[in-house]
Amino acid sequence: MIRALIFGATGYTGIELVRILTGHPNVAVVGGTSRNWAGKRASEAFPFIGKDDDFRFYPMENFQPDSDADVAFLALPHGESARVARQLLDAGMKVVDLSADLRLHDPNVYGKWYGKHIDPDLLGRAVYGLPEIHRDSIREADLIANPGCYPTSVILGTAPLFKLPGVDAACPVVDSKSAISGAGRGAKLTTSFCESGEGFKPYGVTHHRHIPEMEQELSNLAASTVKVRFTPHLIPVSRGMVSTIYVPLRSDLSAKTAREAYTEFYRHEPFIRVLPAGVFPDTALVRGSNQCHLAVEVDERTGWLIAISVIDNLVKGASGQAVQNMNLIMGREETAGLTGLPLFP
Amino acid sequence: MIRALIFGATGYTGIELVRILTGHPNVAVVGGTSRNWAGKRASEAFPFIGKDDDFRFYPMENFQPDSDADVAFLALPHGESARVARQLLDAGMKVVDLSADLRLHDPNVYGKWYGKHIDPDLLGRAVYGLPEIHRDSIREADLIANPGCYPTSVILGTAPLFKLPGVDAACPVVDSKSAISGAGRGAKLTTSFCESGEGFKPYGVTHHRHIPEMEQELSNLAASTVKVRFTPHLIPVSRGMVSTIYVPLRSDLSAKTAREAYTEFYRHEPFIRVLPAGVFPDTALVRGSNQCHLAVEVDERTGWLIAISVIDNLVKGASGQAVQNMNLIMGREETAGLTGLPLFP
Amino acid sequence: MIRALIFGATGYTGIELVRILTGHPNVAVVGGTSRNWAGKRASEAFPFIGKDDDFRFYPMENFQPDSDADVAFLALPHGESARVARQLLDAGMKVVDLSADLRLHDPNVYGKWYGKHIDPDLLGRAVYGLPEIHRDSIREADLIANPGCYPTSVILGTAPLFKLPGVDAACPVVDSKSAISGAGRGAKLTTSFCESGEGFKPYGVTHHRHIPEMEQELSNLAASTVKVRFTPHLIPVSRGMVSTIYVPLRSDLSAKTAREAYTEFYRHEPFIRVLPAGVFPDTALVRGSNQCHLAVEVDERTGWLIAISVIDNLVKGASGQAVQNMNLIMGREETAGLTGLPLFP
Amino acid sequence: MIRALIFGATGYTGIELVRILTGHPNVAVVGGTSRNWAGKRASEAFPFIGKDDDFRFYPMENFQPDSDADVAFLALPHGESARVARQLLDAGMKVVDLSADLRLHDPNVYGKWYGKHIDPDLLGRAVYGLPEIHRDSIREADLIANPGCYPTSVILGTAPLFKLPGVDAACPVVDSKSAISGAGRGAKLTTSFCESGEGFKPYGVTHHRHIPEMEQELSNLAASTVKVRFTPHLIPVSRGMVSTIYVPLRSDLSAKTAREAYTEFYRHEPFIRVLPAGVFPDTALVRGSNQCHLAVEVDERTGWLIAISVIDNLVKGASGQAVQNMNLIMGREETAGLTGLPLFP
Repeated sequence: MIRALIFGATGYTGIELVRILTGHPNVAVVGGTSRNWAGKRASEAFPFIGKDDDFRFYPMENFQPDSDADVAFLALPHGESARVARQLLDAGMKVVDLSADLRLHDPNVYGKWYGKHIDPDLLGRAVYGLPEIHRDSIREADLIANPGCYPTSVILGTAPLFKLPGVDAACPVVDSKSAISGAGRGAKLTTSFCESGEGFKPYGVTHHRHIPEMEQELSNLAASTVKVRFTPHLIPVSRGMVSTIYVPLRSDLSAKTAREAYTEFYRHEPFIRVLPAGVFPDTALVRGSNQCHLAVEVDERTGWLIAISVIDNLVKGASGQAVQNMNLIMGREETAGLTGLPLFP
Repeated sequence: MIRALIFGATGYTGIELVRILTGHPNVAVVGGTSRNWAGKRASEAFPFIGKDDDFRFYPMENFQPDSDADVAFLALPHGESARVARQLLDAGMKVVDLSADLRLHDPNVYGKWYGKHIDPDLLGRAVYGLPEIHRDSIREADLIANPGCYPTSVILGTAPLFKLPGVDAACPVVDSKSAISGAGRGAKLTTSFCESGEGFKPYGVTHHRHIPEMEQELSNLAASTVKVRFTPHLIPVSRGMVSTIYVPLRSDLSAKTAREAYTEFYRHEPFIRVLPAGVFPDTALVRGSNQCHLAVEVDERTGWLIAISVIDNLVKGASGQAVQNMNLIMGREETAGLTGLPLFP
Repeated sequence: MIRALIFGATGYTGIELVRILTGHPNVAVVGGTSRNWAGKRASEAFPFIGKDDDFRFYPMENFQPDSDADVAFLALPHGESARVARQLLDAGMKVVDLSADLRLHDPNVYGKWYGKHIDPDLLGRAVYGLPEIHRDSIREADLIANPGCYPTSVILGTAPLFKLPGVDAACPVVDSKSAISGAGRGAKLTTSFCESGEGFKPYGVTHHRHIPEMEQELSNLAASTVKVRFTPHLIPVSRGMVSTIYVPLRSDLSAKTAREAYTEFYRHEPFIRVLPAGVFPDTALVRGSNQCHLAVEVDERTGWLIAISVIDNLVKGASGQAVQNMNLIMGREETAGLTGLPLFP
Repeated sequence: MIRALIFGATGYTGIELVRILTGHPNVAVVGGTSRNWAGKRASEAFPFIGKDDDFRFYPMENFQPDSDADVAFLALPHGESARVARQLLDAGMKVVDLSADLRLHDPNVYGKWYGKHIDPDLLGRAVYGLPEIHRDSIREADLIANPGCYPTSVILGTAPLFKLPGVDAACPVVDSKSAISGAGRGAKLTTSFCESGEGFKPYGVTHHRHIPEMEQELSNLAASTVKVRFTPHLIPVSRGMVSTIYVPLRSDLSAKTAREAYTEFYRHEPFIRVLPAGVFPDTALVRGSNQCHLAVEVDERTGWLIAISVIDNLVKGASGQAVQNMNLIMGREETAGLTGLPLFP
């Protein structure tokens, strides 16, 4: 059994790691950290955790890097991960970091969006953990920068376009919508039920921090600079993410051809479903699963292509993808622990 | 008192007309039609209707055009309104039609999106009822084509751009999101609670019938052809609509200048609020009111402008706007019956 | 015009007072207090407030009791109201207190559930503001203890039973369900969207502080001691409250007779609707209105009576009832400002 | 591998069977029936079903009882199951019936609540499939009447009381609340999003058909007649059920003693969690799992005991329990396929 630690185990991505790893055939969670529940057992925080799956929460300060764990998941706030990652790597563990600390390769870009990085060397060591794009590098890595939820949905929804000659994907308009769990666990007025439960609103217009991450990866795929016009919005659901991506066509392209290109691009991917003509993805049909559902359509009247990418922000957009990455770096079946169907309804 | 009839009074826009008109100082609802409740009283269908506000539902067939009503609201399915409108006009009533039957001026455009029109002469007689754009013509009209919900949000969110030299508004990308009530009242699997309540999905991609209506009005404002790339989505709330509108800049333009242009454009409008920098609209803050909240931002990094327009789809997007139009055609205070604040939370 | 102050104007009951009073034909809100928005204008906190309805927020400390207001609404946390109420009364204002500070007549009972009272004399001066039960006393009062939301629904749902000989209403089982807004505005993990939005749970089992208030009023109606077995639960909606009340029958009683007794009891009440046989109340049909919908049924198989009482917890359960009380103490039409129909859907 | 058929595979309990069985280590779904999707593959109805888990839907009429399946799950409307069950048993399959057709032992009681039974002999053959109560009989059975959702929550929440001398459990008041999925899949106005999504309401007051089922089992446990005063309500969530159960005490009993009795009663049960003092169950913490969370409290002030029982109506209240029963009748590990943690949030 792979012995796993979860840092930040009582936040939403932490809890989701517990859920997925508890059902994983090759993993045992041997400990976690939690600010609010330090010293307690997981079953005290969550009555649904049974005796066989129980483990203890440590405070961050008492954490012992000489633990005999094999792998650590860092579900920590941005800024805390980089420091911990270094300690864990030095202690011989492999690390999957779910924060944004290690996703950008260029320290200058990082600095512009997040401020000065505390350990820029790590930026070169971390591999961007989107298996559909970087599978081979991930297999060799000991440090994974698990992608953000918005970038996951946007990159998966856009990647096939760079192989399509008739499409100009250099400046996509990306209109994204995220479930409220994306704002993290914690008491905030803006994400309280009464303020957010019957509303819908944009936020972070023009300056969301996931933008440089998307641009890094899309530029890489394009082999030229890609800039995104990105607007995120909050949907009153607990899980789910939709990115609606608009790009102009350079020449005639049928929806059928575009759909075939997507299907071909993802032919061997276990978690990607390209939907047939006339069927559009719905967050309700991926909830709780590691799947990404994609649809592509061409607006012949205006000469633009629309791609729609749907994931569960906590699974393929965070903890599920982290486990997929862990499977790869630990040499296991990539889909292990991740084959569960979505919970519908 | 103005004596009003409501055709289709037990659908969502019909019920909303009842709610608004019951609180209107100058109007009495004297009757309605309803397929399911014909012969019954309104208070039987809705226990919240009190004795003083009660009225009787007629079946469509028994309707008497010699009724002594002054004005009729048609909250009927598309296709049924045009026929009824003609009868009512002939009987001397003024008519506000909430369907799409009379919104397009060009019978050929109508034919392309809806099929052959049954009474194309009416298309020339009806005035497009967006008071912020066509107030003077509305005052003179006896037949109002009340705008669709998506067009209302999109036109109000885009109109000021045509006065801004640095903006290329000829081909906006419009990503819209509508509450589920937009799908109408009625039993459908796709809008059942369990199928739609925890989901979010696009629909009608590339071919929603509100497109020609937007393009007619925007082209008119631009004095040249405008084409929209339009994608609607369903939000799991009962009321609310957000349109996020993206247009490229031709030259430098600050967000401040853009915001001032919006503020100036709507300076005297009682129902439009242009929000200050850093504040973005939220459907929760217009629910139940006739207001439209607008925000405008410039993405300097990519040279695009983003405008966000929020309404309650059943009020400013339907029944509230219908009452606003009625106030104008009947020579009353434009805001009468429409000054209620939104229900928050 | 009646000049009104709102203390705690940015909490949910405060905002609801603003909404209702803004639409009231005889009232102008001349000021409010707010911890978070002191010094700002109401329109800054809520973009939907227009120029004509705007007012300024004061910090609690700067409040001037020599203000020329006629009436003050106290939407303050429990414990703060009693002190402020005394100052306002001394300055000649009438006071409607929405907190629990003044609802219990007996200082000992108050002490047992809330701790020592800071101004027990006020307990004797305040009139319990349930107009359907205490209308005449309310008209004479200058200090109103506005009832709690649970007691309002339970007392209105139970009161007619004490006139029915065949019913033993001395020990009702009361199972209540409240919208999340009942927990107040403020950032709490338990009322965050993700924790509460797809859940349903009891809380405060056996010891909710609204119990003594119900028992005081029900005992008064019964002219003997009434004890309630009360369990509150949280419904994932923003507004609404249901109390399901179970009492044993002493002798045969038909549902028809029971229903007639309810109808008779509330014959002249403008806000109460007793529903016909086979129709049961729904929070969706009172949302935003001051109505209370009641149904009563007899389970002949087991010999028990079930009464169901539904209100909007923020309106009839708080701010609407407060305005109804203000209308009475200021000698206005009892229904002024409160005739709006619910917002459905 | 156990070869399973699912009758009614595209209703909510059918889909949930697909989800659970797809993750079951010992089962392969080899076919299903569906009215709407007959002739299609499961992956066409649900894009989340992958190639390895796909199967074909047959129309009910074409079903071949000589199929080589080992077990059949009947997720059919009430009334259709009994006929099919007989055919399948004759063909040598074991049958788990999720309908109400076979739950009542007494044909007269069945007749009174449902009408004349078409195959009363089956009533004697079927074992009531609540493993926590009837585990040994289930192991020997070839025909299981899977309990209703309300009875499951109520029986599990009440059963330990019959061992507690100080409690009078002969006439419990049972106030239950169910998620909307309990109303089944299908287009109904009352369960549409806009009608039900922001409401809460009782239904079936005094005459819900699950009453005789509860009374049969509780009377059996009590060894004397038990009658329940039962009121169901609809919660606006897709999954979850809460039963709040009130019984009077005959003599002093502490909450601690009651809680210990519950804990002892369910000591070896893998799916039951008795919560510690001060912690109350929440549907959000069982969603998607086969767990039942129980709390028990004593109201010393009034001398009543309150038990609260929470399940996911589609899992422990339907499809999860059906799989638990199948595990028992097929001689597998009782928890196989059912160990997944709930999806939270």
